[in-house]
Amino acid sequence: MTEVEFRSDVTVELVRSSAHDSDVLFAARVSTQGEQSLAGAEAEAGERDRGLINYLMRDRHGSPFEHNSMTFYVQAPIFVFREFMRHRMASYNEESGRYRELRPVFYVPNTDRNLVQIGKTGHYEFIPGSPEQYELVDREVRQSCENAYESYQRMLEAGIAREVARVVLPVTIYSSMYVTMNARALMNFLSLRTMREGTHFPSFPQREIEMVAEKMEKFWEELMPMTAETFNANGRVAP
Amino acid sequence: MTEVEFRSDVTVELVRSSAHDSDVLFAARVSTQGEQSLAGAEAEAGERDRGLINYLMRDRHGSPFEHNSMTFYVQAPIFVFREFMRHRMASYNEESGRYRELRPVFYVPNTDRNLVQIGKTGHYEFIPGSPEQYELVDREVRQSCENAYESYQRMLEAGIAREVARVVLPVTIYSSMYVTMNARALMNFLSLRTMREGTHFPSFPQREIEMVAEKMEKFWEELMPMTAETFNANGRVAP
Amino acid sequence: MTEVEFRSDVTVELVRSSAHDSDVLFAARVSTQGEQSLAGAEAEAGERDRGLINYLMRDRHGSPFEHNSMTFYVQAPIFVFREFMRHRMASYNEESGRYRELRPVFYVPNTDRNLVQIGKTGHYEFIPGSPEQYELVDREVRQSCENAYESYQRMLEAGIAREVARVVLPVTIYSSMYVTMNARALMNFLSLRTMREGTHFPSFPQREIEMVAEKMEKFWEELMPMTAETFNANGRVAP
Amino acid sequence: MTEVEFRSDVTVELVRSSAHDSDVLFAARVSTQGEQSLAGAEAEAGERDRGLINYLMRDRHGSPFEHNSMTFYVQAPIFVFREFMRHRMASYNEESGRYRELRPVFYVPNTDRNLVQIGKTGHYEFIPGSPEQYELVDREVRQSCENAYESYQRMLEAGIAREVARVVLPVTIYSSMYVTMNARALMNFLSLRTMREGTHFPSFPQREIEMVAEKMEKFWEELMPMTAETFNANGRVAP
Repeated sequence: MTEVEFRSDVTVELVRSSAHDSDVLFAARVSTQGEQSLAGAEAEAGERDRGLINYLMRDRHGSPFEHNSMTFYVQAPIFVFREFMRHRMASYNEESGRYRELRPVFYVPNTDRNLVQIGKTGHYEFIPGSPEQYELVDREVRQSCENAYESYQRMLEAGIAREVARVVLPVTIYSSMYVTMNARALMNFLSLRTMREGTHFPSFPQREIEMVAEKMEKFWEELMPMTAETFNANGRVAP
Repeated sequence: MTEVEFRSDVTVELVRSSAHDSDVLFAARVSTQGEQSLAGAEAEAGERDRGLINYLMRDRHGSPFEHNSMTFYVQAPIFVFREFMRHRMASYNEESGRYRELRPVFYVPNTDRNLVQIGKTGHYEFIPGSPEQYELVDREVRQSCENAYESYQRMLEAGIAREVARVVLPVTIYSSMYVTMNARALMNFLSLRTMREGTHFPSFPQREIEMVAEKMEKFWEELMPMTAETFNANGRVAP
Repeated sequence: MTEVEFRSDVTVELVRSSAHDSDVLFAARVSTQGEQSLAGAEAEAGERDRGLINYLMRDRHGSPFEHNSMTFYVQAPIFVFREFMRHRMASYNEESGRYRELRPVFYVPNTDRNLVQIGKTGHYEFIPGSPEQYELVDREVRQSCENAYESYQRMLEAGIAREVARVVLPVTIYSSMYVTMNARALMNFLSLRTMREGTHFPSFPQREIEMVAEKMEKFWEELMPMTAETFNANGRVAP
Repeated sequence: MTEVEFRSDVTVELVRSSAHDSDVLFAARVSTQGEQSLAGAEAEAGERDRGLINYLMRDRHGSPFEHNSMTFYVQAPIFVFREFMRHRMASYNEESGRYRELRPVFYVPNTDRNLVQIGKTGHYEFIPGSPEQYELVDREVRQSCENAYESYQRMLEAGIAREVARVVLPVTIYSSMYVTMNARALMNFLSLRTMREGTHFPSFPQREIEMVAEKMEKFWEELMPMTAETFNANGRVAP
């Protein structure tokens, strides 16, 4: 019998990038200078440039943040991808349940994950569950996934097309994708899919997509530190 | 115990529309005439106009097909919505498993649905299954869905948040959404999600999304008959 | 000799629309209710609904504002259209200087238009000019446009292609277009192209595009009064 | 008096890029393989991979061509940028006539440029002009541009705001911009803005934007040779 695997985390890798603070600068300066300064474009962004990036962020001049690109490889459950792909300013290629047999890897919440929601629609807060609740969720999810995957396997073995057999698989099964975004689209994504102190317009993301968003943000902060810093300094409002 | 419902069809309703063949004409004619002719815009498209629409379609002048709008209400399984929402030139609002308890309505393929795929990746053909295969799929899907929904219910009853409990639900559960598109986006959607004789660039959609696409096309043909006719006459290539 | 015409205003007409406050409501309610309520969708938005629209606007749930459509016919100088078409969430069809001989209609600022800018880049303020400055601008613009149009005519008469001859025409020549947008895209446009008291993120649009934006806003306010009111009540931040 | 400069060419430079044939491959293979193969992603695309790229292009699987990015710096006349910016799947930052005094550099067609159009709307052909026609165009364009620029200067010297004074400038004045696109958007651009033998859907671009497109294509061919080759082999239809 197939070994079913359970995970409680997500995978995010940075596969390709062309993204630097200096990309913002050359794009912004063309409006006032016209002539390209490749020399300037190649240089590191310096202290003097921080003010310009901050001005663009604060006054919501968004287009200079678009001349860059980051490609991430993500493994996360399908219910995360469902939310992710509502973001239309990005490029996606995902593993296909029509073209391949899906692997038996499923997400199960662990005790780091708050289980109980309080408050009203759109402003839910989440608090930890009791030990019994954690046990219940763990047992139910594991049992459900194992049953569903066995059913999937029985249909495949009987010659049923993959695209039909997979309909029984739960939304907690892992999928994988490549997603490409620029920094402006990423800031919009982060503003809606993370929840942080100091955020001007608060959002209430599901924790699992926030786990993906946090890992993406870490990579981005390394690539474009000044841009990331001014994003935070301006209430995490996407320009 | 909750009554679980099974369906083998999809629902598509036209909720709002502002879409007429004459919308294509006024948009196209502004390039050569400049002045607006509201009189012309109000008039029905006539025989003389068919040639213009055909020329636009054939030579891929796409923008005149964008000045219109159709809003559909769709009920279909989640695996269909997953494919649908890859189309970024549309607006979506969908039922949320975070904000409400999902109803126990599931899709199960019936004997109209071919179950067996032959051929190679990207060019699969589908043929009917044997009576035993249909029985197996029916039994497996029903059993899986019932088990998963019971598990979902047990978690909800134990006070687990809806967004956590729903992870066990299979992708064949129905969801509902409003989707708004213009005719150009719709033609692109149809060219990729239907399979018809006379199509210039063949596609190989999953049958269930094709069922949605066919119903959308029917509404569109009534609203914009000349546009639909020239789309077909030009190999169903989106302009 | 061709009569050259000068104007100091812009034309905006609403040509088509399918846009009501109730469109926002049905789209928002599908997330919590799932089932479509056509009855509800047809009804007028009432007092009880204002709170929901305000909540969506304030918490930046943007997608429910997309299921509607407005088509405007606009006549304005080319330098306005240059700025307008940077907005990518809209559909455009414009009069073509390749396909037709452009009419000799030009924009000249009148004394309602502030002529002198003070302050620094990105935060310019504009103040009226002196009588001599208004006279100068009037004289220079009229003379320049007449000269350019005569040059255009001489080239056309000599058999030069329209697309070549038109290169001498100034950016103040009028063009005309159809533009189609939904309310979410329109709010983004208004937030960037108008300047009003009570705006959360101030913008500094060129006056001539603001004249177009103001006329568009008037039409929209009539179509979707509650949406427009909550947009203003929430600092004119596009959701 | 300011020296006015005339040019008959356009400038295109590749400023940034993250674009390789292998980017197409990893994106395409995730649908059938799921697991990321960074090793594979880093490797050069080989002969075996050509077939996959060709299949994607031919069957119009467009999304794998989106996980890459190219930033170009372009100098061209405003009438070219007007056409360029109708392409919405790209990012733009352009020199601003509001923020800076525009330089007196203008485009004038030289004898490489066909001056006379024959045929009917949408299918014009262009043939060379007579020596007299070339002389006329050269004289008219130079005279018009010089007059307009002098008028612009007189207004600036009288303290008129740049955004007002610039309205007299002709659409043949050069501007500069950064534009960022992925290969899929670029192929769409090329299919509409170049005219070549073997093109499946012919287009009739204005020569000056084609000059820009040709230079962009040269850079792209070097970055993604297999993709460019299969684009040509499949009738230059954007996938």
